[in-house]
Amino acid sequence: MNMKNQTSCTDDEPYLKIIKTDGFVESDYLSNLQKRICQNDKRIESEVRSILDNIKDFGDSALLEYNKKFDGVDNIQRLTQEDFKKAYDNTPNDLKRALNGAFKRIKSFHKKQLEKGYSIKTNSYELGQIVRGLSRVGIYIPGGTASYPSTVLMNAIPAKLAGVEQIVIFTPSQKNGILNNDILAAAYVAGVDELIGVGGAHGIAAAAYGTQTIPKVDKIVGPGNIYVATAKRLVYGVCDIDMIAGPSEIVIIADEFSNPEYIAADLISQAEHDVLASAILLTSSLSVAEKTVECISKQTQFLSRKTIIKNSLSSFGCAIVCKSLDEATFIANEIAPEHLEILTENPNILLGTIKNAGSVFLGEYSPEPLGDYYAGANHVLPTSGTARFFSPLSVSSFVKKMQFVNYNKRALEEVKDDIICIAKREGFDGHANSISVRFTN
Amino acid sequence: MNMKNQTSCTDDEPYLKIIKTDGFVESDYLSNLQKRICQNDKRIESEVRSILDNIKDFGDSALLEYNKKFDGVDNIQRLTQEDFKKAYDNTPNDLKRALNGAFKRIKSFHKKQLEKGYSIKTNSYELGQIVRGLSRVGIYIPGGTASYPSTVLMNAIPAKLAGVEQIVIFTPSQKNGILNNDILAAAYVAGVDELIGVGGAHGIAAAAYGTQTIPKVDKIVGPGNIYVATAKRLVYGVCDIDMIAGPSEIVIIADEFSNPEYIAADLISQAEHDVLASAILLTSSLSVAEKTVECISKQTQFLSRKTIIKNSLSSFGCAIVCKSLDEATFIANEIAPEHLEILTENPNILLGTIKNAGSVFLGEYSPEPLGDYYAGANHVLPTSGTARFFSPLSVSSFVKKMQFVNYNKRALEEVKDDIICIAKREGFDGHANSISVRFTN
Repeated sequence: MNMKNQTSCTDDEPYLKIIKTDGFVESDYLSNLQKRICQNDKRIESEVRSILDNIKDFGDSALLEYNKKFDGVDNIQRLTQEDFKKAYDNTPNDLKRALNGAFKRIKSFHKKQLEKGYSIKTNSYELGQIVRGLSRVGIYIPGGTASYPSTVLMNAIPAKLAGVEQIVIFTPSQKNGILNNDILAAAYVAGVDELIGVGGAHGIAAAAYGTQTIPKVDKIVGPGNIYVATAKRLVYGVCDIDMIAGPSEIVIIADEFSNPEYIAADLISQAEHDVLASAILLTSSLSVAEKTVECISKQTQFLSRKTIIKNSLSSFGCAIVCKSLDEATFIANEIAPEHLEILTENPNILLGTIKNAGSVFLGEYSPEPLGDYYAGANHVLPTSGTARFFSPLSVSSFVKKMQFVNYNKRALEEVKDDIICIAKREGFDGHANSISVRFTN
Repeated sequence: MNMKNQTSCTDDEPYLKIIKTDGFVESDYLSNLQKRICQNDKRIESEVRSILDNIKDFGDSALLEYNKKFDGVDNIQRLTQEDFKKAYDNTPNDLKRALNGAFKRIKSFHKKQLEKGYSIKTNSYELGQIVRGLSRVGIYIPGGTASYPSTVLMNAIPAKLAGVEQIVIFTPSQKNGILNNDILAAAYVAGVDELIGVGGAHGIAAAAYGTQTIPKVDKIVGPGNIYVATAKRLVYGVCDIDMIAGPSEIVIIADEFSNPEYIAADLISQAEHDVLASAILLTSSLSVAEKTVECISKQTQFLSRKTIIKNSLSSFGCAIVCKSLDEATFIANEIAPEHLEILTENPNILLGTIKNAGSVFLGEYSPEPLGDYYAGANHVLPTSGTARFFSPLSVSSFVKKMQFVNYNKRALEEVKDDIICIAKREGFDGHANSISVRFTN
């Protein structure tokens, strides 16, 4: 598919097609979008399942074998906060400042998500809910070029705030023993406890099941390739996972007052992620759509990820010219995008009508990369239309709740007949007995 | 397996084995517990997948065929609040009172879980989080004898409080057209909007994908047999689901002051659910364990679900005599039970040491059936050890969150260098461009 798009997309062609809504064209286009979403690949699934089973059954020895086979290393690197500190000390000052600035804003945004337990208390009974941080969380960080310090911050900061006792990065060991310095520096800034050098499906298995030397985790978060994503899906239930992530997308709503230069830049910044990324403009102005297409060609030529941008825009990008902003909003809610930018004259007016989106960026000085790195809101967001029902990663993602009930004799006596009534209607006389046994003799 | 247990378990035998902790026996026992947890059955999975695909591709016509094939009915029953009202009017007064009493307490407990959005605002930027109820939720209710009004209340009340716009029960149509009156009465009390008569895997498919006449839902909750559970697992991601539920369990912590009659009754009430249910006593007193075994034999003989109780207690029940209450607590946390009763002299002292449990019942007048039906805490709880990382069903289960970010020019200008620095380190010059384009001209 990539090859095809590469050849079909010459430099003369505009990257972004423009379509006008007529009730059919755009729904055809939108259902094509769904095809981006990876179907479960049976071959990969069975390969991953056998890796999971081997780690589960043989632990460290299997892990070492896979580390040798897949990453060409003879050991399992384990780093601690001291190593992170050294990496931080070796970090250029501008990145240090940027990481600390991002840390501060991410922490301040997520602090507001801290949940407290509660209780309802009378003279004769008390009941309530207790909130506890998870004991141990694994953050998966891909190896190689797709290794991002911002991912470390976005995953570790809410976990830390939630009171997670141990935060552990799982990432592939490197042949030369040298891990990405920026990742380690970010781990230092965010207060990660440990890094274990196992990646891929075997890394996920080690996190979920544990081995002789690696304690199992309660939850695995973080991005990864199709093997990692499949492994996460298969261990869901053995531990918790953050989400089933699909390819990501941006939708931009624009009117005749929006600046095509900015629209183009923001569509491009989404498209450069990967060839499956989708960047969609919904605008009430044909002229803005046309100017955006021009700006995209102009801006893209100087960018290093030009080929990816071209491919994703021509495959899954589109400018849809809508009859009204109401129609644009309606379509945006149908798409339920990961990122939504509202670049209209009065963005706040539209916000109230947005029902489904991961993160909404309002006005022309809130481009999506501001959210990716710095504003403080999380960048781990529901993708591929799942914003209809999933939420951004948050402090809540790293806690669990526990209920408690404490009745005294009088309190139970007052309600015992009702309980016995329901229990008997449901055919559970053992349940009824558990109440009545307390009031006989 | 059931047959074997039935024959090996005569009336003379005690139902519950007693073991003493030595570090090995009990961990053997606990790992045997894990075997209850159903492995994915490939035959069922492929059968369910084909049902899902047919409903997805053919909608209503496939749904009607499955309703004919599996439930022997020629139509799809659809009931609304008027029908629920009629059923309520036909309900005996004692059940009306019990349902209303339960409703009131469940509502009062869950009201405390309502979440508000928040925002952080300065002169130059604002960002925050908006909380919205899901649009449409499906509650699966099994047909036939396993049809429980308490399930309707426990699932619908938090959904209603969360602001879900449409709450729809999916349940098998009945040949005679007559649905369980108690279910409909509970639907009336809880304010359910509609009932659609499709059950099994095809019911789950209709809920997840929608058909020509049935709009798709955002989330499916509620219990069901292995076909329903498999279908829910497979549609996870198409919509949200409540949890991957396994067989349920109770753990009771007792000391020498605990009443064996009550312990016995409460172990029995868990065991009567089904043959895979597990009921475990952890006690520091051998004598209490022995008396509990006697009480179980005595109490069980008059109960209607005697055979199920016998089977589950002999397969997955156990009295573990611990060296101390500390050891008992340690084992309870390892099991991470759905229900935990603390029947010791000072139950509140132990509560602080409980890390993993769905619902904790404190003291001798808080038996688990009080929580199943009436106290107000939810009875949809993490099972099979997943209380390590999952939470009880709550209002939070029925909302989604959406972030928003709104910077003005000055605010973005202040942080632009940091953003560009991180973007470039991560190799995304398109991201950097989306910031810098706003400050060049």
